[in-house]
Amino acid sequence: MPELRHDPIQQRWVIIASERATRPMEYVVDVTHQPQEFCPFCPCNEQKTPPEILSLRDGYGAPNSPGWSVRVVANKYPALRVEGELDRAGEGLYDRINGIGAHEIVIESPDHQMHMADQPVSHIAKVLRAYRERVLDLMRDVRFLYVVVFRNYGESAGASLAHPHSQIMTMPILPRTIEIELRSARDHYQRRERCLFCDIIRQEMNAGSRMVIENKDYVVFAPYASRSPFELFLAPRKHQHTFTTSTDQEFDSLAKTLSETLKRLRAALNDPPYNFVLHMAPNMASKSIWFQEFSTIAEGYHWHLEIIPRLTKPAGFEWGTGFHINPTPPEEAAGYLRQVKLEA
Amino acid sequence: MPELRHDPIQQRWVIIASERATRPMEYVVDVTHQPQEFCPFCPCNEQKTPPEILSLRDGYGAPNSPGWSVRVVANKYPALRVEGELDRAGEGLYDRINGIGAHEIVIESPDHQMHMADQPVSHIAKVLRAYRERVLDLMRDVRFLYVVVFRNYGESAGASLAHPHSQIMTMPILPRTIEIELRSARDHYQRRERCLFCDIIRQEMNAGSRMVIENKDYVVFAPYASRSPFELFLAPRKHQHTFTTSTDQEFDSLAKTLSETLKRLRAALNDPPYNFVLHMAPNMASKSIWFQEFSTIAEGYHWHLEIIPRLTKPAGFEWGTGFHINPTPPEEAAGYLRQVKLEA
Repeated sequence: MPELRHDPIQQRWVIIASERATRPMEYVVDVTHQPQEFCPFCPCNEQKTPPEILSLRDGYGAPNSPGWSVRVVANKYPALRVEGELDRAGEGLYDRINGIGAHEIVIESPDHQMHMADQPVSHIAKVLRAYRERVLDLMRDVRFLYVVVFRNYGESAGASLAHPHSQIMTMPILPRTIEIELRSARDHYQRRERCLFCDIIRQEMNAGSRMVIENKDYVVFAPYASRSPFELFLAPRKHQHTFTTSTDQEFDSLAKTLSETLKRLRAALNDPPYNFVLHMAPNMASKSIWFQEFSTIAEGYHWHLEIIPRLTKPAGFEWGTGFHINPTPPEEAAGYLRQVKLEA
Repeated sequence: MPELRHDPIQQRWVIIASERATRPMEYVVDVTHQPQEFCPFCPCNEQKTPPEILSLRDGYGAPNSPGWSVRVVANKYPALRVEGELDRAGEGLYDRINGIGAHEIVIESPDHQMHMADQPVSHIAKVLRAYRERVLDLMRDVRFLYVVVFRNYGESAGASLAHPHSQIMTMPILPRTIEIELRSARDHYQRRERCLFCDIIRQEMNAGSRMVIENKDYVVFAPYASRSPFELFLAPRKHQHTFTTSTDQEFDSLAKTLSETLKRLRAALNDPPYNFVLHMAPNMASKSIWFQEFSTIAEGYHWHLEIIPRLTKPAGFEWGTGFHINPTPPEEAAGYLRQVKLEA
């Protein structure tokens, strides 16, 4: 059973996933992955994954057989396990929770070679709807305080399989980064009765210099204090604390925005590896004591998508201090991304 | 001029070092470095670095000529600039400071091929004394609130030159990770009048399962909530809030401890890339308003060295959430490191 452990110095939970353990000599450093002959995510290999939790099919095909356009399965090598009751324990100065959580894979297309930037916008909207459906279902489980949806694209962004996919992970704790965001948002709201993110979006729209895409529903900009070159922040213009209340119409518009963002990144940076991570409000159905502290989430928090091309290598300095050196000012990055020519 | 920018959501400062900027297409992803013909850190190439700030010489050689055993120079491509007055400004919701700070290189040996684990212990002690001398000198500058000493070893740990070296960087802010540590330590001290780190060291010595080295002056253990496999924490057993008060005798013992740690890591993990980062108390001479909040640093903080072998690739999940998945329990890592056979 994996464990969640709390660091009393850094105030941070960590997953110790011992069942994934590797013996020391098996760590091969800087390996280039072998080209994979067999792909468990391709059609006809449905039996090689855990049974499907959700699939979008245009009317044909039985579960776990070809015919799907988007398919969600449990991760065969999950970092957290879904079965069991939460068991919280202390160990002297330390805290521990057994590793309860869900870890699912969203297989975004039957086409092994499909690049998300080349997906029809209508297909990206389907993927977004699959995210929403799974997140809503997972949030019915009161053991789960938080849900993260993320996508790793490319070897050096951590994708171990090339077939287009994203991941959904739930956990019984608040990750530290999210906790800091929630606190900043709450402190801002308590003082001003305004959403911090709405204020930032307004300031970015007025400034313009860091803006990449601005349409009637969404904005995409390079954050003022970007940690890394070409980091992007995508958010709804309208105040919306969580992703799951988005309507189908909003998802059509979001799919269009995301598609254009990925096309611009690909064109400007020669198809870079990247990660995107969806930040949304925690699970309000959870019985966590946390919510006493965060009663203004609906008014004061704002969901967003962080997109991080992996162009620089964080070294000891960044790891040890949480202090990042970014060689590309966000104004320059945004300028390039606005100007880059997209294929018709 | 580089800039420090503050992210109001993540409460984090970032260096925007525009003079190091790269045009988008120049980001070559996952490149393997070319073997370097010319090394500016080798003896006889002293004119290719900025003039030396400090050199340890056994009585011979003029400054900036061969004969040194340890040499400190300014970084030719600094992330921060040392000249000028601090200039703090707001920009709507954002905060900015001009990029004032020092960025120095400690060239640890004249021998290009020397591995730190192979250095005589007495030579490692010299390197530690060079750290102390530079940190003490830099802390005379009241503009600098914090000093970080760090070492990147190996390509994938961020070392761009192979010649053995470490780096010293000063900054007018507290990095977020350090700020969180200082707060945890203060909260613990205020409640108990005991140092959090001393308590953890005592608990680790009693538990024993995560301990790698325990001698009369220092301990090295794998932290309970290690973020990554074989992460190590080295600290003095005696309460000591900052590295710079260490005596020469302590440095001899520390050099021995560090040497053994690096030897064990090399033997267990086949010479892994790693980073180490020295965490010490902030510059008490600095006039920062921060110190009103942290009056118990001398009693409640404890310097330490974090050593992080780079065996796993942090992906979007880690980056986006600050939540790490570690496949190797620290008890297993410590067990391997204790048992590994060292060459005589």
